[in-house]
Amino acid sequence: MPQDVTFDLPFSTPVSPHLEYARERHLRWVRDRGLVRSDAGFEEYCSWDLPQAAARTYPYASAEDMTVLMNWFSLAFLFDDQFDAGRPDRADRVTEVARELIVTPLRPADTPPRVVCPITQAWAEVWAQLSRGMSLTWQTRFAASWGRFLTAHCEEVDLAAAGLEGTLTVKEYAQFRRRTVGIHHSIDAGERSRGFEVPAQVQAHPVMERMRDLAADVIGFMNDIHSFERERRRGDGHNLIAVLRRELGCSWEEAAAEAYRMTAACLVEYLELEARVPEMCDELGLSEDERRRTSMGVEAVQHWINGNYEWALVTGRYAADKDTPAAAAERAGRGSVDDLLSVN
Amino acid sequence: MPQDVTFDLPFSTPVSPHLEYARERHLRWVRDRGLVRSDAGFEEYCSWDLPQAAARTYPYASAEDMTVLMNWFSLAFLFDDQFDAGRPDRADRVTEVARELIVTPLRPADTPPRVVCPITQAWAEVWAQLSRGMSLTWQTRFAASWGRFLTAHCEEVDLAAAGLEGTLTVKEYAQFRRRTVGIHHSIDAGERSRGFEVPAQVQAHPVMERMRDLAADVIGFMNDIHSFERERRRGDGHNLIAVLRRELGCSWEEAAAEAYRMTAACLVEYLELEARVPEMCDELGLSEDERRRTSMGVEAVQHWINGNYEWALVTGRYAADKDTPAAAAERAGRGSVDDLLSVN
Repeated sequence: MPQDVTFDLPFSTPVSPHLEYARERHLRWVRDRGLVRSDAGFEEYCSWDLPQAAARTYPYASAEDMTVLMNWFSLAFLFDDQFDAGRPDRADRVTEVARELIVTPLRPADTPPRVVCPITQAWAEVWAQLSRGMSLTWQTRFAASWGRFLTAHCEEVDLAAAGLEGTLTVKEYAQFRRRTVGIHHSIDAGERSRGFEVPAQVQAHPVMERMRDLAADVIGFMNDIHSFERERRRGDGHNLIAVLRRELGCSWEEAAAEAYRMTAACLVEYLELEARVPEMCDELGLSEDERRRTSMGVEAVQHWINGNYEWALVTGRYAADKDTPAAAAERAGRGSVDDLLSVN
Repeated sequence: MPQDVTFDLPFSTPVSPHLEYARERHLRWVRDRGLVRSDAGFEEYCSWDLPQAAARTYPYASAEDMTVLMNWFSLAFLFDDQFDAGRPDRADRVTEVARELIVTPLRPADTPPRVVCPITQAWAEVWAQLSRGMSLTWQTRFAASWGRFLTAHCEEVDLAAAGLEGTLTVKEYAQFRRRTVGIHHSIDAGERSRGFEVPAQVQAHPVMERMRDLAADVIGFMNDIHSFERERRRGDGHNLIAVLRRELGCSWEEAAAEAYRMTAACLVEYLELEARVPEMCDELGLSEDERRRTSMGVEAVQHWINGNYEWALVTGRYAADKDTPAAAAERAGRGSVDDLLSVN
């Protein structure tokens, strides 16, 4: 049921004209870099249609940059699935790889990874391209957003490995979800995709900080709704619907309805803050150029909310009825068909 | 010879009135937390007089915060010495611990460390206090500065473990030294110590960015001069004097003179930039309050340049003639008398 749940978003966003050009180059890159190894893995990967997600969330990227962004998505999504419930010791390897991913933006671009596997090698290559032309301030912000997300991901894996994922309250889960959804760095990348930067004082303003957090909440909760069938198949208890059902002692349907209500409430609050952006610009005494870059920063958030939503409705990643090797692996508690944390 | 080399600094800076109060509490904490284990380790640690370094670099901290800053210094300096040249495999443990230290500011304060040893436990405790009351923007900047430093430290250890530390050119070494000296996050902590924040747009301005880099160069090169005897005793080839001597094929005296000249040149350039700060404030259209916080930010840099300099002239850490168990351990290639990377 949940993958077809629709929301009433008050803005629409464009799709990159470079989708097919970049998709072709991206799919070749994914195989070349060993990010998909088996035919079953490639079939599953193609069904997710991440190129569409990138083309919707970064609609103004150049054709070359669009390929880079798709390449980045592939390693991030594929890494996300590498935990194997049948091998709890794998949590240590997930952490080791995640920490390599965290330090990559903290050293000179093009430094080879110290922990070597397809994921870390791919990220070192992508980061050299993704950081190009961006200020130290942007790189600092991206590195911290990315590091916070990966650290939270490891906590999630550690909870699953310890069999503790069903222990968070709704309030704890909502705070945790904001960190695991990975939206802050995804919005940061919007600036790189369009070749601009949000003024530093805007980024530091409470209105902008809160907008980013609310965008993360909206997208995280929507994702929990749309990916519900996949996560149930995978035995993943880190899903708002499952947390609500347990805490409220209600039916799945009632839990899904409450998750929908919470998501819509976050969206309303986000929109209220968006309306306060001109007032924030006045308060900061911004120039015309700074206001333009602030508007583009707000658009980057919209591209993510709407682009991710449109993609989530149709991606094969969240499909309920799947009869593929990947779905069989998921039912068996394995995160993916291909192991990408080892060398070959 | 080099520890008594003097520089002509055009500013003097105050010393905290809380030095002795905080020293007493700090020394108890260091023993309680297992950061020094043996009597020889404690004797060596006391001879460094890090409390004086903290009291000079953060002269306006409250009595309680002064203790926190000393505690932070202890774990950072002690971790710096944990590589053991006789056990190259120890580089892996140094990296594992460093990455734990890197992620600590990227997750909610008070989260217990995943990699457990006295250093990581002490840092988790100190970070909870050091981050208190600071904005997300400051925490982001500190986390990235700290992470870049620790990543560079691991590169330094890896080069030593591979026997490659004598391979950098002067130009490469200067770039590397800027990263290994650890000054950016030390200056960031100046804001916490005095309860203020430099405006985000100032921190992002090229003048301020360059001032921070030059302060790192000045302090890194001064440190190479003042710690030369210690590093020669330890067989550490990552020292500007050693790199210059090798590249120029000159005597130690000539290399030391060239290192002095390079340091003085960086100081001159730093001072030229300092003189441009009022112009930068005009360009950014800062309010009176923002100008005041910018001035305090410049003072935080001065506190570090001068405070570190005054301390370096007298600390036992850099003493040339030492006949202690710690010096014997250094001559044998061991970084320190106590192993702080294991659990008891």
